[in-house]
Amino acid sequence: MTDTAPTAPTGPIAAILAGDVRTAARLMRDLDDRRPGALDTLKALFPHTGKAYLVGITGNPGAGKSTVVDALIAHYRAAGEKVGVVCVDPTSPFSGGAILGDRIRMQRHALDPGVFIRSLATRGHLGGLSRSTFDVAHVLDAMGFDRVLIETVGVGQDEVDVMKAAHTTVVVTVPGLGDDIQAIKSGLLEIADVLVVNKADREGADRTERDLMHMLDLRAHGERKDVEIVRTIATKGTADGSGIRELAQAVEAHRMRSWQGPTAAARSVARAQAHLAELVRALLADRAAKAMAARGGLAEIAQAVVDHQTDPWTVAEQLIEAL
Amino acid sequence: MTDTAPTAPTGPIAAILAGDVRTAARLMRDLDDRRPGALDTLKALFPHTGKAYLVGITGNPGAGKSTVVDALIAHYRAAGEKVGVVCVDPTSPFSGGAILGDRIRMQRHALDPGVFIRSLATRGHLGGLSRSTFDVAHVLDAMGFDRVLIETVGVGQDEVDVMKAAHTTVVVTVPGLGDDIQAIKSGLLEIADVLVVNKADREGADRTERDLMHMLDLRAHGERKDVEIVRTIATKGTADGSGIRELAQAVEAHRMRSWQGPTAAARSVARAQAHLAELVRALLADRAAKAMAARGGLAEIAQAVVDHQTDPWTVAEQLIEAL
Repeated sequence: MTDTAPTAPTGPIAAILAGDVRTAARLMRDLDDRRPGALDTLKALFPHTGKAYLVGITGNPGAGKSTVVDALIAHYRAAGEKVGVVCVDPTSPFSGGAILGDRIRMQRHALDPGVFIRSLATRGHLGGLSRSTFDVAHVLDAMGFDRVLIETVGVGQDEVDVMKAAHTTVVVTVPGLGDDIQAIKSGLLEIADVLVVNKADREGADRTERDLMHMLDLRAHGERKDVEIVRTIATKGTADGSGIRELAQAVEAHRMRSWQGPTAAARSVARAQAHLAELVRALLADRAAKAMAARGGLAEIAQAVVDHQTDPWTVAEQLIEAL
Repeated sequence: MTDTAPTAPTGPIAAILAGDVRTAARLMRDLDDRRPGALDTLKALFPHTGKAYLVGITGNPGAGKSTVVDALIAHYRAAGEKVGVVCVDPTSPFSGGAILGDRIRMQRHALDPGVFIRSLATRGHLGGLSRSTFDVAHVLDAMGFDRVLIETVGVGQDEVDVMKAAHTTVVVTVPGLGDDIQAIKSGLLEIADVLVVNKADREGADRTERDLMHMLDLRAHGERKDVEIVRTIATKGTADGSGIRELAQAVEAHRMRSWQGPTAAARSVARAQAHLAELVRALLADRAAKAMAARGGLAEIAQAVVDHQTDPWTVAEQLIEAL
């Protein structure tokens, strides 16, 4: 944490730096709602960030991601770390944790002040989920959480974008999934720093691991990326599942290789650059949405397109010129 | 088809209107590559579109979507329709059908001139997949395809966006999926016009159907949306699977209700409006990416963020002002 802020923080900033959960939750909500002032608070918190380590967990639906996250929370808590969790569900129409907050996992850690869970599930904000993930992670970082877990529920471009916020990305899969899912895997594989074969007591675990190795080899143009494969049997309701310690070790090994070695500086710049690109796109999308809403009369233009009096591409270009 | 174009079309436009596959494929590639001139061709084709009926097929990974699509192609071909297919795989790093084109299903229809399959799998184009789906669908429409099937592989916001192009959206699920997938379903359920319980010979089909009905009821604030549930047992390699005819009937019933009744006009305007909003966002994202690439020196700014000399939100706002 950089403690060289020019003036002593006051108000909500001081409260968040002191770890106050209510103030932090309010800020996150205000950021979501694009309330004026919220961004200024975030900017003021920025000098106090940079200490948290962000671990992303994504993978196939049904692979048991939330159970793995549950076990990781328990693991890091046992190691004395404060753990923040961002649950991202791009397919859900709810935000603020309406669905995810009800999950059993949440309840187990709900009374632990060393765990803070925030769900992001708002749909339709273009580029908004990745932006919000960065925002929430910065707030958790400023609050003093050592470890921030980013869990995604779906599998798509959203998840890939969201993972740009993570320092280490863990992709979870299970034995015995169909071809359909194999195809999805190739996209996720690209962003994996650590691969998990969960439910490794199931038949086919050996074959799944071999397949993953094969895919990693295929993907390697030139030098093969150093991706560790870990087998886990994460079980809901137990403090630690088989293989969870090895998973945490694989994450630390990636951290040492990537963020504390000679490539660390370049990686930090690339990550900041990715964040900036996401922000620019998200802010532009905000403005476009606002401008189109303010413009009104879009139904009239759409009617002209339906009637083939003009075409959608010409109209879109004209709308942009008018922005 | 509107045949009242002011002048007789020539060159690539005439070739595409005559159904020439090579010219159409080249245009689709040029549109993907954002080649100058490609958009003008698309604009010129627009007066000749509006006849094709677009059916979207999405759903849980492993639900057998591609088998359902395969059976639907066979069904519509048997009914004498020309069938275009757009396969969208947002998680794949490949475009132009590298992976999907190899699928068995493709091979079966590859020699049938009444079937044209185009894969879209480019990642990282913000809002680009929905835009490209609309583009390809317009080209297929102009070529004279009566039916355009839009199949998506993943499950996420991308799929929801892509389905904005469809007149009728079919969501495919199967019995016996876990909780993780139930959560995903709630997002897809929102956009479903027809629900399919595929692999309906599996244990749990009754329960799955009951669950879906329950979710539809829960979702209904006020009037319940009229969503038909169809059971299928689509089988790869057979001309028609059990329930496919009923599925096609359910699609036609939705078409009658929605696009030929009193609500049709309003729906058309809403769909054109959704397309315009997608286009504006996609074109803005293009411009932002181009401007940031042209600007260069982004690494230098990112370094300042890493060093906490400034914060990412302030920098992003400055970048936008400079655009």
